[in-house]
Amino acid sequence: MISKSEIKLIRSLQQKKFRKETGLFIAEGDKTARELADSDIHIEKIFARSEWRARNIHIASKEVSEKEMGQISALSTPSEVLVLARIPEQTPHWGNEKVVLMLDSIRDPGNLVTIARIADWYGLSRIFCSEDCADFYAPKTVQSTMGSIAHVRAIYGNPIEMIRQINLPVYAAMLEGAVDIHSLTKAEPCVLLIGNEGRGISPELQKIASKRIFIPGYGKAESLNAAIATGIILDNLTRLHKI
Amino acid sequence: MISKSEIKLIRSLQQKKFRKETGLFIAEGDKTARELADSDIHIEKIFARSEWRARNIHIASKEVSEKEMGQISALSTPSEVLVLARIPEQTPHWGNEKVVLMLDSIRDPGNLVTIARIADWYGLSRIFCSEDCADFYAPKTVQSTMGSIAHVRAIYGNPIEMIRQINLPVYAAMLEGAVDIHSLTKAEPCVLLIGNEGRGISPELQKIASKRIFIPGYGKAESLNAAIATGIILDNLTRLHKI
Repeated sequence: MISKSEIKLIRSLQQKKFRKETGLFIAEGDKTARELADSDIHIEKIFARSEWRARNIHIASKEVSEKEMGQISALSTPSEVLVLARIPEQTPHWGNEKVVLMLDSIRDPGNLVTIARIADWYGLSRIFCSEDCADFYAPKTVQSTMGSIAHVRAIYGNPIEMIRQINLPVYAAMLEGAVDIHSLTKAEPCVLLIGNEGRGISPELQKIASKRIFIPGYGKAESLNAAIATGIILDNLTRLHKI
Repeated sequence: MISKSEIKLIRSLQQKKFRKETGLFIAEGDKTARELADSDIHIEKIFARSEWRARNIHIASKEVSEKEMGQISALSTPSEVLVLARIPEQTPHWGNEKVVLMLDSIRDPGNLVTIARIADWYGLSRIFCSEDCADFYAPKTVQSTMGSIAHVRAIYGNPIEMIRQINLPVYAAMLEGAVDIHSLTKAEPCVLLIGNEGRGISPELQKIASKRIFIPGYGKAESLNAAIATGIILDNLTRLHKI
């Protein structure tokens, strides 16, 4: 059983306004639910069909009927489990990562999710996002992270202030950068700054860059997709730390 | 003016069957049209509104009205120019590239386009695709290449036969690969084989791999998107050839 007020709350979380107001988000699907339950994301409640509960008796959950799941799900085909969880604390600080990933105005949710999966691959547990980035905690976006929502936190804020608090050198990825990423030799912790899909990094953020780095290209393409650039640069930076 | 038979032909090219039958495809939009006209892709005819023709007098084109453009365009908002062009010859051979990119069953057109843009960035003029890859010459796919359609050719065929004809060592990108891409030191021309988004490289193609390579990861993500993997590996392979 699920109460009317719970249904109302969960449905409201499809809107950013209410996610912001309550600090909560929803995640659906078997794999995502199990990974979230296993993560350090704070879970408020898990609503699940009886079959899922039987398979996951070690995870505390509340039984709901098919009809109730249909009422709370944000998906056109409701899954068998829905997690009500708390959006991680939005405070920037340097958590000892080798690379701190900061996104300036990545507007496309698909790009944001791909970048989160790349961060997850390279063992980064957080991505810092300007307020105008796509919302990582929107139900459909959460859904498409394929579990990375449980490993990677998105922290939103003003990039300039976040960079000041993190206090590491800033490597800005720029098409007209001055430093070829293949020429980097020093393994220093840094902020990797990735800009908007069309406009790149905003002029005011460019000003605080310690290094303007670029990916060497040999063809006629004008640019690489922001997520591709993130993957290639993170590969280069982590390679430095490994050697 | 455009004839009824031309309208019929162009409209038919929205279907793969007729593209295959005629060997023709259509491309729309100002930038794409100008880049195609400037490329070595064989152009059959260019249909354009008078304003475009006035701005591009050095490019031979046929004037069409707004209504006619609406009849031939595959876009919901027709552009001012439509190119009728010939699909490049579908013969595989080694064209002296440092890396020959071969795609096994990349089904998502978005991934295929992103990969083509990466190929373009790294100066590869061709991508080899298994027959079940998404169709690079479908109108909406062409549209989304952002001009790379003029620089990168897609050649479809049986990967095993194509690899036999190209006759270079095959580096297969695999999650369970044996060779860390960061450990590669030899700059040898090779075929880079990228597999399906979900299933990876088919077992029969795995068998003919000379090297099974992987991208080192340090986090919990199960996989990287196929296009991201392509970008990271191409960056590593071209780096070898540069040093």
